[in-house]
Amino acid sequence: MTAASNSVGVVTPQSIQFNAPLPLKSGAVLKNYHLMFETYGRLNADRSNAVLVCHALNASHHVAGLHADANGQPLPKSEGWWDNLIGPGKPLDTDKFFVVCVNNPGSCFGSTGPMHVNPDTGRIYGASFPVVTVEDWVNAQARVLDVLGIEQLAAVVGGSLGGMQALSWTLQHPDRVRHCVAVATAPNLSAQNIAFNEVARRAIVTDPDFHSGNFYAHGVVPRRGLRVARMIGHITYLSDDVMASKFGRELVGRDRHDEPNYSTQDIEFQVESYLRYQGDKFSDYFDANTYLLITRALDYFDPARAHQGNLSAAMAKALAKFLIVSFTTDWRFSPARSREIVKALLDNGRDVSYAEIDAPHGHDAFLLDDARYHEVMRAYFDRIASELTTTAPNASPTQPSEVAA
Amino acid sequence: MTAASNSVGVVTPQSIQFNAPLPLKSGAVLKNYHLMFETYGRLNADRSNAVLVCHALNASHHVAGLHADANGQPLPKSEGWWDNLIGPGKPLDTDKFFVVCVNNPGSCFGSTGPMHVNPDTGRIYGASFPVVTVEDWVNAQARVLDVLGIEQLAAVVGGSLGGMQALSWTLQHPDRVRHCVAVATAPNLSAQNIAFNEVARRAIVTDPDFHSGNFYAHGVVPRRGLRVARMIGHITYLSDDVMASKFGRELVGRDRHDEPNYSTQDIEFQVESYLRYQGDKFSDYFDANTYLLITRALDYFDPARAHQGNLSAAMAKALAKFLIVSFTTDWRFSPARSREIVKALLDNGRDVSYAEIDAPHGHDAFLLDDARYHEVMRAYFDRIASELTTTAPNASPTQPSEVAA
Repeated sequence: MTAASNSVGVVTPQSIQFNAPLPLKSGAVLKNYHLMFETYGRLNADRSNAVLVCHALNASHHVAGLHADANGQPLPKSEGWWDNLIGPGKPLDTDKFFVVCVNNPGSCFGSTGPMHVNPDTGRIYGASFPVVTVEDWVNAQARVLDVLGIEQLAAVVGGSLGGMQALSWTLQHPDRVRHCVAVATAPNLSAQNIAFNEVARRAIVTDPDFHSGNFYAHGVVPRRGLRVARMIGHITYLSDDVMASKFGRELVGRDRHDEPNYSTQDIEFQVESYLRYQGDKFSDYFDANTYLLITRALDYFDPARAHQGNLSAAMAKALAKFLIVSFTTDWRFSPARSREIVKALLDNGRDVSYAEIDAPHGHDAFLLDDARYHEVMRAYFDRIASELTTTAPNASPTQPSEVAA
Repeated sequence: MTAASNSVGVVTPQSIQFNAPLPLKSGAVLKNYHLMFETYGRLNADRSNAVLVCHALNASHHVAGLHADANGQPLPKSEGWWDNLIGPGKPLDTDKFFVVCVNNPGSCFGSTGPMHVNPDTGRIYGASFPVVTVEDWVNAQARVLDVLGIEQLAAVVGGSLGGMQALSWTLQHPDRVRHCVAVATAPNLSAQNIAFNEVARRAIVTDPDFHSGNFYAHGVVPRRGLRVARMIGHITYLSDDVMASKFGRELVGRDRHDEPNYSTQDIEFQVESYLRYQGDKFSDYFDANTYLLITRALDYFDPARAHQGNLSAAMAKALAKFLIVSFTTDWRFSPARSREIVKALLDNGRDVSYAEIDAPHGHDAFLLDDARYHEVMRAYFDRIASELTTTAPNASPTQPSEVAA
């Protein structure tokens, strides 16, 4: 199989404008919003082969395939963020499934977010964009599925914050999900997780270029804060071991055993160079208000809260079958957090498969092409495919670019 | 034993002015510097009962006892940073030992540092203060001992960065150390450790109030950067478990199971309140240039570097006996890092005791009054005391306030 035939090829983002307000968990509403999304593969005749992918912090609706330039030519390095998992013949096989990924409201990748105009004021939302939660995102995604004519998902899948959305789908819309695949996730954030988010937020909010979230009007971006936020993020995405093997104590431009330059501000170690590069890159494209919103959505997610902290009671609503996957070196959302989910599901007699993958890459592993991990995913999606009554996709989905809901 | 009789009581900081330049590892020299220090207990007749305590990042020469106000009255809450360990009848017993703690150059607690005047320029050092290393600090401490007439230490002891100094003493001055007690330390920083330091430094250096390190002249302090640096530090000092038990997902002013306020910038969770408080407090008193210098000293420490990474070869110089202590939940300097030191010492046939203390508090444990930990320390110092030829302290040290070296 060549690389080309293994890709979904060029994909065009689509958009739906929603005029009915979206009620939010906070009590606020989101008015006149639009959602960007992409689809891959074809919906089958009985509309039973749809798989919804939920994205995490720094990701968009562009989960697979390539984007094209104005002439329709594929853009280099435009692969979707989970392209190694999703495509023809891949573990989530677009020859069998119709895959949908929706950009969540509040994002900075196309759906209505803080950089858009608040219809109530005629001014850019900025920091006044309403606080959105995992539950709100799930409801927004459900409206896209309504437009696409998808009543029930073969599966909902996500990693990290995306895994939280996948879990929440099974609680908010239990009848609409047959399988839930939640990877490298947790039933809520620990105090340490919240602490890292809070430091990142403080770095952004206290950057003088943040201007109380109205930096757009000042023609600046709180780059210093975004850089620090991203550097902190990267440390928590990687395992201690993989940082040691990638960077160790290597110096930049010299042998590890050479004398360093003895400078407090210049780059000495390769890990510093890596982090500064990642921070700079991130500050070029990510929106500071979106960062605040998304980290807060992470903080607030806690389905057990309404059940006095009892996760088993919370998960009783779920009717789906589950695959839960964790990675041994993930210290952000450790295997112990996934096992809490597994236990809560087993307490309710649910059908749950659990894989704890021995991988060195830490939290990042869920995005990587790890053979053991992908074989688990392939086997599970093959099982879902075998349950489909119509195996040959032969219906076209509604063309939603034309639709206003 | 009452609390009062268990304290070294009021202690007065002392200072020595050094006119001979201190050559630094970087090739630079430190001229006309002074060092602050404190002593506790009495030096015995043959000057064999001296114990040097080396301080870590956020600490000073004030390791035990109380400071007094202008009338000689003890100031409340002025206990030294290791007062639970050091005093009459305490594990490091000042009835038996003469304890010395020196504030390292580059610090902001009294010894010559970035906020002092560079004698070469007549201007405040700021960011031009020479880069100091663990080895430089050890040499500076040795000069204080020279003035005090202490040829050989009964022991050198330190935790974290202080432990690195203790280890370095045994390599730089092997004849001057009979015992080395190194707690919660590492033979060098991992890539992850360096990464956390780098994020903290970037937060400080990119704060507009840093003014390239010359903020003193602008009448400002880079508080935003210092706050973020300290918040990051606190996350790494505590274990995930202790954060969970101290803060969990508790909300501020409400029950954990109540609805949150839904705000991206207001404090919601108790862990946020704790971190902001710690960051604010730190930014009131800590010097930004000192933070850069001390984190770099941590980064650079690596005795194995000159031996192509072979720690056993590096430790061959040491002649001391060792007690190495680590804490199970310390993820900053994990027990595995202490075991590297133990192995290198055993490879050289050295006398080494190792205690891995099962404590929940993470890296902070080395500063806390944990019974198992303190019993290990007490037993080891009792052994050192039993080796002293003169058991009754009866000589007064040189009065160094009068001395210029």
